[in-house]
Amino acid sequence: MSSDDLSTLRRGAGRGLAFVVSGPSGAGKNTAISALIARVPGLVYSVSHTTRSPRPAERNGIDYYFVADSQFADMVAAGEFVEHAVYLGDQYGTSKAEIKRLTALGADVVLNVDVQGACTLRRVGVPGVALSFVFFAPPSLSQLGERLRARGSESEAEIAERLRAAAREMRSLEIFDYLVLNGDLATAVDELRAIVMAERLRVVADA
Amino acid sequence: MSSDDLSTLRRGAGRGLAFVVSGPSGAGKNTAISALIARVPGLVYSVSHTTRSPRPAERNGIDYYFVADSQFADMVAAGEFVEHAVYLGDQYGTSKAEIKRLTALGADVVLNVDVQGACTLRRVGVPGVALSFVFFAPPSLSQLGERLRARGSESEAEIAERLRAAAREMRSLEIFDYLVLNGDLATAVDELRAIVMAERLRVVADA
Repeated sequence: MSSDDLSTLRRGAGRGLAFVVSGPSGAGKNTAISALIARVPGLVYSVSHTTRSPRPAERNGIDYYFVADSQFADMVAAGEFVEHAVYLGDQYGTSKAEIKRLTALGADVVLNVDVQGACTLRRVGVPGVALSFVFFAPPSLSQLGERLRARGSESEAEIAERLRAAAREMRSLEIFDYLVLNGDLATAVDELRAIVMAERLRVVADA
Repeated sequence: MSSDDLSTLRRGAGRGLAFVVSGPSGAGKNTAISALIARVPGLVYSVSHTTRSPRPAERNGIDYYFVADSQFADMVAAGEFVEHAVYLGDQYGTSKAEIKRLTALGADVVLNVDVQGACTLRRVGVPGVALSFVFFAPPSLSQLGERLRARGSESEAEIAERLRAAAREMRSLEIFDYLVLNGDLATAVDELRAIVMAERLRVVADA
């Protein structure tokens, strides 16, 4: 120890932590992440690139960077993504530049990626960034079915397909560090916050 | 997965977690642990055995099990402790029976042990219990000196000895998972709570 200030011995002391939050669609992940970021100082959202069209409320550079297929393909070819994946026919990717921009600000980062992307990130890592993997899910698959039916925007066939996808995604759980179940939004956000705090308190491995 | 209830895939699902909280004397650890246990449901205090005399406010079976030297020696000989250590001439130990009693209740356990005891627990483990190691310290060693002087119960020579002990104990930091600094009690307790919550959310390794 060169300094009398012991907080420099913690992993979260300006070292750049990234929280990869992933899980089945329909579990309320996006809402929980927004609430988490509003509540935890020094935590910011990593904006993904996508080739899909913006939905009405979505804004470029805030929800996603909306890019053309050709631009996305150029970025893939140039190795500009740490992970990229196709979901329901559209491309999604996490750019190295975005993570670098945010960690350079001294912030910790939330990455909202699909399970396939999380598996890639677990395998390849991000240089200079400590990653924690959070699986965000409904309390049960049967409850996910009820939620999808209640929102009424998908057909029974689409709901069945989403439930099959969720069951498939659950099989990747073992690569994750944490499992947060969204039975109640406030509780789930409190749990996400506890994970961020705890990771910030970890002892630096190379201290 | 045999069950539709996904919470069974979390480490904290009735599996018995133990939080080993350790660190320099004078950092306010005992006060913080009491506040933590009062705040977190399902978390209980593991009562240690000691050969030292009870202080005025201390109660047998609550703060410590106060035992004679001969009884402590018999327990050591019978292998009844998971760890035991001498601190300032008195014996302290964590009994297997106490941990078993508490985890059988379905509770998670806080073990309040000295740094030497924590190092032993890290090495030997406790069968059937997942251990997390928390180093609880003042924000800086210079601040620890100020606190000890302010409470006025030790001589300058004793304070100097405690500060040397604290500096020595800091060198064991690398065996710990988390570092909590008690600059402000409410914040420190909130951080301990976050660690307990996060560990309960961990994915079961053998799922």
